[in-house]
Amino acid sequence: MRQSICLRIVSTLVNTTMRSHTYFDSLGSARIMARVLDGKALARDIKDELKIKIHNWVNIGHRAPSLRCIIVGNDPASHTYVRNKVRAALEVGIEAETIKYDETLSEETLISAIESLNQDKNVDGILVQLPLPNGINERKVCNTVAPEKDVDGFHITNVGQLSLDMPTIVPATALAVVEMLKRFKIETYGRNAVVVGRSKNVGMPIAMMLHSDGNHDSRLGMDATVTICHRYTPPEQLELHCRNADIIVTATGIPKLIKANMIKPGATVIDVGITRITDEQGKTKLVGDVDYDEVVKIAGAITPVPGGVGPMTVAMLMHNTFQAAQKLRDIN
Amino acid sequence: MRQSICLRIVSTLVNTTMRSHTYFDSLGSARIMARVLDGKALARDIKDELKIKIHNWVNIGHRAPSLRCIIVGNDPASHTYVRNKVRAALEVGIEAETIKYDETLSEETLISAIESLNQDKNVDGILVQLPLPNGINERKVCNTVAPEKDVDGFHITNVGQLSLDMPTIVPATALAVVEMLKRFKIETYGRNAVVVGRSKNVGMPIAMMLHSDGNHDSRLGMDATVTICHRYTPPEQLELHCRNADIIVTATGIPKLIKANMIKPGATVIDVGITRITDEQGKTKLVGDVDYDEVVKIAGAITPVPGGVGPMTVAMLMHNTFQAAQKLRDIN
Repeated sequence: MRQSICLRIVSTLVNTTMRSHTYFDSLGSARIMARVLDGKALARDIKDELKIKIHNWVNIGHRAPSLRCIIVGNDPASHTYVRNKVRAALEVGIEAETIKYDETLSEETLISAIESLNQDKNVDGILVQLPLPNGINERKVCNTVAPEKDVDGFHITNVGQLSLDMPTIVPATALAVVEMLKRFKIETYGRNAVVVGRSKNVGMPIAMMLHSDGNHDSRLGMDATVTICHRYTPPEQLELHCRNADIIVTATGIPKLIKANMIKPGATVIDVGITRITDEQGKTKLVGDVDYDEVVKIAGAITPVPGGVGPMTVAMLMHNTFQAAQKLRDIN
Repeated sequence: MRQSICLRIVSTLVNTTMRSHTYFDSLGSARIMARVLDGKALARDIKDELKIKIHNWVNIGHRAPSLRCIIVGNDPASHTYVRNKVRAALEVGIEAETIKYDETLSEETLISAIESLNQDKNVDGILVQLPLPNGINERKVCNTVAPEKDVDGFHITNVGQLSLDMPTIVPATALAVVEMLKRFKIETYGRNAVVVGRSKNVGMPIAMMLHSDGNHDSRLGMDATVTICHRYTPPEQLELHCRNADIIVTATGIPKLIKANMIKPGATVIDVGITRITDEQGKTKLVGDVDYDEVVKIAGAITPVPGGVGPMTVAMLMHNTFQAAQKLRDIN
């Protein structure tokens, strides 16, 4: 099995834009670690591209795209996420505002606030930071956002369009994964992909795009054979499916779920998981679902956590907002 | 491998309501063939149940559920399908009418005809027989049918709801497969399922229900680990995925695609394919995707073609129509 690693070293070395490192295994043989798919750098590139596009768009007379981020309650993580989104928006030239509500907010008030934003011709994108406090029906709220302003891609209509391979707004994290596969030129056509986790915002839409026809209208299909694993997949079956996969996308929030012995040498591993843990020294740090230090020695390409899918999600949200602005301008 | 067949013989024999036959292999050993999942008989049961429910519904003062089947052009197969649907509707007490149009019909006229049916309070279910003549956009037509009357489950909203595990109207063929698995008590929880074919009306919704959470609102989730194979899955990978599957659902229209060497002994094989072929004697007959005569010797359960999923599809369409009638009565 390990010999196939050597075969791919050549192609890995050719690509000098990717980070890769030599290490020595227990027998003293030189090995090449996986290419690290730098989501932070790619997100910067995408934001730079967007910045130019939006600049040109404004230069020909359009107003700047605009985004409204609604946040309810005081969850510190949610506030950090929204701050990062607003900062990214301003960086690329999207006008952005946070609308903060107390956690005692009623569902009715939230819904009528969203309805006003739906009507507001100066707003292109509306984002409701999840989770919402108990007592507010998230699904009802997501369906209140006008589908054409739903930059999170959570509305039933957008999910339906995605499932039918129609042009739509795709949930940013799922789009981030697909964009990384494309930009880093990971071949998906006819390959085996495993998606671990079946959440409706991440795992499901990723599986949908990975298995779909690349010739359909959305142009997001990737023509891979896709296996969807989840909490009820027995561990030995998860291992078996992963070991047969050319691409693994994991989004479970379970640290070290994906171990080195589950990886086919040379496979691509995309880690969407993000969990804050406390290590032996009592220090807190962010980790993904992948046992990175070991998997990096077997995989052909891997995303780090942090610095992988996370920053790309924010970049794709900006992409979605600009897309919404352009489409709304066409309609109005 | 073959020894595991013997283990399941006992449980197969216990269930006397299933057909199973003994045969002798080339070494003269007695073997038990797969249980044949009789879709025709099950469809009859379901229609009998529906007939009673609809009778009771009408007895308490509701008008009979009503279905309108639109057919455009002269395709003989389409006319046969619609005739079967109308016959089944009348059998169970659904008032049904076929609306026939010439193949020169314009998209605009078709759309306004559907819009009138949407408004008609005496109509519960609307079905547009596909395919439509060239020049008519099928997706646009499917989205014109009011989602609550869309008994085919093709509207974006219904597809979105299905993808989000929400209560919805599910495409009849996909629902037929899930209903067969349930009624024949095929365990899916934590099992490996392979869906061959990624069509939006059959393969995709089946994969969606098979992998989803059984505790979600739709109650249609089956908690299986699901692999979606399609035209770009390399043959050796299709074989590998199938051999690891406890359940195979195939919907490709390629006769004998699924062969005995691809089947794990004891697996369940659901054949959605239906193709008219001419045999060596020049006789035409309907066949599925499965090499039935050989697979029946290895599988634990198998659907025949014809007489498997086909009749169940019509029964589930009647189920959808009654469901739509009940829901519309709640709304009005």
